[in-house]
Amino acid sequence: MTDLRNRALRFALQERPRFKEEYFELVSIPSVSTDPTHKPDMLRTAEWLAAKLAAIGLEHVQILSTDGHPVIYADHLHAGVNRPTVLIYGHYDVQPVDPIELWKTPPFEPTQLDGYTFARGASDMKAQISASISAVEALLSTGVPHINLKFMLEGEEEIGSPNLPAFMRKHKELLTADFALNPDAGMISAVDPTIVTGLRGLAYFELRVYGPRQDLHSGLYGGVVKNPAIALAELVAGMHDVDGRVTLPGFYEDVVPLSEQDRDDFRHLPIGADYYLEQTGALKISGEQGYTPSELIGARPTLDVNGLFSGFIGEGSKTVIPAWAMAKISTRLVANQTPEKVKSQMESYLHANAPDSIRWELTPMAGGPAYLAQKDAQGSTALAEALETVWGKKPLYKREGGSVPVVSEMKTILGIDSLLTGFGLPDDNIHSPNERMHMETWYKGIDALIHFFYNL
Amino acid sequence: MTDLRNRALRFALQERPRFKEEYFELVSIPSVSTDPTHKPDMLRTAEWLAAKLAAIGLEHVQILSTDGHPVIYADHLHAGVNRPTVLIYGHYDVQPVDPIELWKTPPFEPTQLDGYTFARGASDMKAQISASISAVEALLSTGVPHINLKFMLEGEEEIGSPNLPAFMRKHKELLTADFALNPDAGMISAVDPTIVTGLRGLAYFELRVYGPRQDLHSGLYGGVVKNPAIALAELVAGMHDVDGRVTLPGFYEDVVPLSEQDRDDFRHLPIGADYYLEQTGALKISGEQGYTPSELIGARPTLDVNGLFSGFIGEGSKTVIPAWAMAKISTRLVANQTPEKVKSQMESYLHANAPDSIRWELTPMAGGPAYLAQKDAQGSTALAEALETVWGKKPLYKREGGSVPVVSEMKTILGIDSLLTGFGLPDDNIHSPNERMHMETWYKGIDALIHFFYNL
Repeated sequence: MTDLRNRALRFALQERPRFKEEYFELVSIPSVSTDPTHKPDMLRTAEWLAAKLAAIGLEHVQILSTDGHPVIYADHLHAGVNRPTVLIYGHYDVQPVDPIELWKTPPFEPTQLDGYTFARGASDMKAQISASISAVEALLSTGVPHINLKFMLEGEEEIGSPNLPAFMRKHKELLTADFALNPDAGMISAVDPTIVTGLRGLAYFELRVYGPRQDLHSGLYGGVVKNPAIALAELVAGMHDVDGRVTLPGFYEDVVPLSEQDRDDFRHLPIGADYYLEQTGALKISGEQGYTPSELIGARPTLDVNGLFSGFIGEGSKTVIPAWAMAKISTRLVANQTPEKVKSQMESYLHANAPDSIRWELTPMAGGPAYLAQKDAQGSTALAEALETVWGKKPLYKREGGSVPVVSEMKTILGIDSLLTGFGLPDDNIHSPNERMHMETWYKGIDALIHFFYNL
Repeated sequence: MTDLRNRALRFALQERPRFKEEYFELVSIPSVSTDPTHKPDMLRTAEWLAAKLAAIGLEHVQILSTDGHPVIYADHLHAGVNRPTVLIYGHYDVQPVDPIELWKTPPFEPTQLDGYTFARGASDMKAQISASISAVEALLSTGVPHINLKFMLEGEEEIGSPNLPAFMRKHKELLTADFALNPDAGMISAVDPTIVTGLRGLAYFELRVYGPRQDLHSGLYGGVVKNPAIALAELVAGMHDVDGRVTLPGFYEDVVPLSEQDRDDFRHLPIGADYYLEQTGALKISGEQGYTPSELIGARPTLDVNGLFSGFIGEGSKTVIPAWAMAKISTRLVANQTPEKVKSQMESYLHANAPDSIRWELTPMAGGPAYLAQKDAQGSTALAEALETVWGKKPLYKREGGSVPVVSEMKTILGIDSLLTGFGLPDDNIHSPNERMHMETWYKGIDALIHFFYNL
């Protein structure tokens, strides 16, 4: 087994140039899932991945349709029923690139610079998909492996995986596994391998406020009609109290409070206010009172405005009272909040606070519940040891602020836990201009996954 | 004189088809002053007007440059020094057309339908310029007239006339007149000829709020940084109190309170809540407590949001904390407020209320003081009688909610009052999609101006 492991590691070392080339190919396809004009690119990405998986020896490779973007499935099931089956999850879609003018390199022309690869999706999560495929290729290069493998690569993570639950329900048999490996979580730093035990959920809304029938001249009518942009601002402003707490009725009812042990775990993370100030460039830490920054990110829910639009936003001035105003509003959820309940809470808030001079419409856009894992879940020791082997130190266990709806859906639908790890770094600028991947960490990630497979 | 008047009126009647054709030509040129891409169209409009004025017999026709769009000057000064000189003011620029998708006809292809002409600028104020030119043509068609005439047509009214004050100071001699005729005010209804005695001023700002260095992933960082879109919403929400009063410090200090006589005048206007509900489609009247709708529009200052932008506003969802947020905010001023003071008040408000977790920037964009005229100003009887002759009823005197910065600038710089009237109707959709002009009222307006000239 040691011999096989070493052969696989040597193979991976030798093939690094080609692995990188293929990773660049994948990143070059603009698979922006939220934008209908990129639909052909989504399909192209799926075809590229299917071809790649077939080429390295995976079987039953299929591009399976959903009501949205397709899912790629593949497997290699020759280790026998007594050996574990690992379901490797990934998403091949990426965030939009705007504001495009802030990119220093073209977002879909991967550019290597100072040890990083710059591109949209370079880190989130095409690097992680490529690392997984490369590690599996190394494993297969040594013969029939000792574990069973399945791949499920979806194309809708960045829009909240709306069709994946139905997909998993439909293909439940096909997706049977002992646990999932989900490399969509990140590392605390390039020297801190990390296993994530918690993820926040998401409930994303579009709120529209309607006032006059059409845009009005602000001179002729200013003073007698409620301005919908102001009404929206008032509604948004009221969603937090002076202590930074969210005011939606019942919002904190289902939140699992932090135990003393939990708070102790958070204190051990090498992440404090300085870290967040440096990463964000914010002038100061600002959030719910009574919690440390790590606790706020990992264990407390939030409400953010992701977009605002109303009236005239071009150059110059236009003296209109807008007919309507829009806010994209999202809440990050922690265990045991659910998007469904938060939607009701948002509606209650709006019913109670919207003035009768305007109409409003709330559209839920994406969502998923929060997730909290056990530290001793199946495979977690194998993963911890693999990370320790490559980085020379034990991994940190943390709760992540982001959402990976598939994790809790997998738990509910397939009945399996997810091992959450990954090789992205906090300053990879994911979802932002100039997204990048630290290449040395990427290569280590491939090795770590090979060790993980052999540790199982 | 009666004979000349009748000849001029017959001429106008006979030439209506050509007047309309020329009005259509003028309206067809997309003279959007706020949009730099329309600069050639602005010049084209100026040239069209200069040619037209020369063609009907005006003299000293000139296209005079400013730091922005040019001003057209022309005169006819053969009545002698004992006769009054009327300075006819107009603006040849128009508002932008967005939201373009709500137009039922192309905005720069004037379309006649149900007695209206639909186009951007059809009413505001190319119809009024065309009516004035047509009336002057009728006057000149009968020989050397008994009054002296000057035209001053600017191209920056819709962006707050930033260069007109300097222009008037520079050409003060050229612009000497006894009073101005400004047909940029509207009528209360098609059967209510109107003279406007008050105009609100304007102070227009762009407020930008800056938070993190760049857009952030709302999962990875949500909870520890102040969201600039929320900070902006909170600042905007705080700009009114629960009674609908503007909270900028000192905002009402300079406002001239309404006398009992003023309130009585307002009560005589045939404009109530029903009127504003019908015109705007708003669900209810909503404004500063303690005033009637007409008082709110004519005699009380306001603060409105004209535009909002932040983060992601496209289709779908994007989970970002935006790096910045923007609001276009304008206040309508009444006598004796000034834009300069309101800017200081806005700055004081922001200094006192902006959290230290964000940075803000306030840019003044357009502005002009309010105006309040005497009812017995020179020429006003001539105008009132002209309107009564054509409509068969005495005009109403009202205070308008809109801003015509030139009116107070003319008072300050040229020392002259303005006669404010016009033939636009409240439902002309000015500044909005489907702007239109009621053609029967337009023809009446030409006749009324001819009567006005002969009444002087």
